[in-house]
Amino acid sequence: MTSTPVFPAAQVQDFVARLFEQQKVPPADAGRVAECLVQADLRGVSSHGVGRVPIYIDRLRRGLVNALPTMTVERPATVTARVDGDNALGFLVGTRSMQIAIDMAREHGMGFVLAYHSNHFGMAASYLKQATEAGLAAFVFTNASPAMPIWGGRAPFLGTSPFAFAAPAGSGRPAVMLDMAMSVVARGKVRRAMQRSEPIPLGWALDKDGRETTDAKAGYEGVVLPFGGVKGSGLSLMMEILAGVMSGANFGGDVRNQYLDFEHPQNVGHCFMAIRPDLFMPMQSYEHRMGELSSRAKATQRAEGFDEILLPGEPEERVEAQRGQDGIPLDAQELQQLVAEADRCGVEVPLAFRAPVSDGST
Amino acid sequence: MTSTPVFPAAQVQDFVARLFEQQKVPPADAGRVAECLVQADLRGVSSHGVGRVPIYIDRLRRGLVNALPTMTVERPATVTARVDGDNALGFLVGTRSMQIAIDMAREHGMGFVLAYHSNHFGMAASYLKQATEAGLAAFVFTNASPAMPIWGGRAPFLGTSPFAFAAPAGSGRPAVMLDMAMSVVARGKVRRAMQRSEPIPLGWALDKDGRETTDAKAGYEGVVLPFGGVKGSGLSLMMEILAGVMSGANFGGDVRNQYLDFEHPQNVGHCFMAIRPDLFMPMQSYEHRMGELSSRAKATQRAEGFDEILLPGEPEERVEAQRGQDGIPLDAQELQQLVAEADRCGVEVPLAFRAPVSDGST
Repeated sequence: MTSTPVFPAAQVQDFVARLFEQQKVPPADAGRVAECLVQADLRGVSSHGVGRVPIYIDRLRRGLVNALPTMTVERPATVTARVDGDNALGFLVGTRSMQIAIDMAREHGMGFVLAYHSNHFGMAASYLKQATEAGLAAFVFTNASPAMPIWGGRAPFLGTSPFAFAAPAGSGRPAVMLDMAMSVVARGKVRRAMQRSEPIPLGWALDKDGRETTDAKAGYEGVVLPFGGVKGSGLSLMMEILAGVMSGANFGGDVRNQYLDFEHPQNVGHCFMAIRPDLFMPMQSYEHRMGELSSRAKATQRAEGFDEILLPGEPEERVEAQRGQDGIPLDAQELQQLVAEADRCGVEVPLAFRAPVSDGST
Repeated sequence: MTSTPVFPAAQVQDFVARLFEQQKVPPADAGRVAECLVQADLRGVSSHGVGRVPIYIDRLRRGLVNALPTMTVERPATVTARVDGDNALGFLVGTRSMQIAIDMAREHGMGFVLAYHSNHFGMAASYLKQATEAGLAAFVFTNASPAMPIWGGRAPFLGTSPFAFAAPAGSGRPAVMLDMAMSVVARGKVRRAMQRSEPIPLGWALDKDGRETTDAKAGYEGVVLPFGGVKGSGLSLMMEILAGVMSGANFGGDVRNQYLDFEHPQNVGHCFMAIRPDLFMPMQSYEHRMGELSSRAKATQRAEGFDEILLPGEPEERVEAQRGQDGIPLDAQELQQLVAEADRCGVEVPLAFRAPVSDGST
């Protein structure tokens, strides 16, 4: 990574936003999409960062994603709602839906929101952050295109969908934030290894004939494996039921793969819950208890090879703090793709973005 | 298992209920406790079955669990409630809390209930079943006494708490039911191996010095490992926050071990959610979609070694159907313990219960 050039997050975000604006995405929406993507790069989740800009732009350009959606909201009861995403970018459906859940939680203690007619929404932690910044705990679930076998199978059926949960931890402490793919690794990591022509470890994926492989391309064309076997498979199925079956979205293998299907919208479904953590005690007591939990966890005897105990979200928080200062790394291919897209649609490219690309390509 | 004697579930349940009644537990409560325990044996979850009767009885007798509790309910908003279990048997706190969540869900679409001042509540699926039998989806979380290290640690800190989710699947199909410990295996399985003087596989547990072990007793005195490493650890921490920190129960290592601490009540916390699966479509449509999900899953290509694909809950459902007919197996030690307890408190013992014990002991 030391040889990978870095760029200020704000500069990348501004540049990426302008690329989306060129696809008729309104400025505020384009800004939010760019923010989510750059947030992923900031947190070290580069599998869900600006390296994905080309596919989102491509699908907008083809009319497979709606740049000017009219989302509608059904609200049958005070704490439940469904958002029809009108085939908007998943980032916007996610942001809108979580905001509704947040508003419900503020008024009624909790909110439960399902979304359908959506698309790939990037890093789930983007929506967790919305909630924790509002002082709320949250769940974020999504379904996804088939990439992982159900337990006992070898054909792609379930998504590698993230299970995401967060709870605020009080001032001065990062929120506890769990955002984890149900596969041994995120499919995006296999894709990235493929793009970089790097091998993958055994146990990450099967090839399309159901055999273990270290070839990233073969693994990407095959299936990634669920973590914990039957347990990861069960959790992904749970998300398929909540986000897919119950929402009205595609499900059971029907969610379209944004990289492979250029005929249909994806029709992804999501599930968002926001919960007041101080339902039954003053916020101060809750935060005190979270502080206790954290300090007791960190004081436990460590296993060999660990210098300290980090709670979920802390590693990403640290990367974010550092990259916020140093900038985010973008490799040659990512830069080249962004620059090519800018050139194609007439967006001015910051000078720094061109230089590394001219050194050669991977 | 072929040499283990089997007994009709109803007979065992009636016998176990009478044991609890002898400890001043009111008949209806004793019946529910016995039902939950026998349900676990019926479903093949014998680690949470009637083999645990002695510890519950012992704690009742010592006054560490309240046989005649007065549970109270706070309900700050229409869909959120907290149950003070008044140190009742966990089965009763769980049943009461889930019933409140069910009633909320019927009226408002969903319900979120936390409980504190509770005790070990047995098999989480008992409460899932309450919800699915009412036509609802549900989550059940609990915290537990420290048995598993947090990621990076080697001392017991987190519970092996079950993550439990269920969704009804329509008539003729068993509900999808996920009830899984966050450890590689349930701690109860290590305890059971210890009781039977059987070894455990490597990877299940560390001994108290942090080394891997195949000795069940050493593993039971040490820690079981989280499944999926950082992922299982993160999910258990999530339950600690929801069920422990937010509920007002003990947390962060303070939940008392019912087998080791005979000074204090456990003060376990739980979290229950019930959700109408037909919030945004007629129940018939939801059930049709669940049927589709199931039949598509079962039609996917199978991995080597699998004759068919089973959804979460199906294996247990099959065992339950068979044991409902054939009876539940109780080993010599389990029987001996039950009989000894009955003799101690003057409960009549069915003749069949004495016979196998007289053959000798393990």
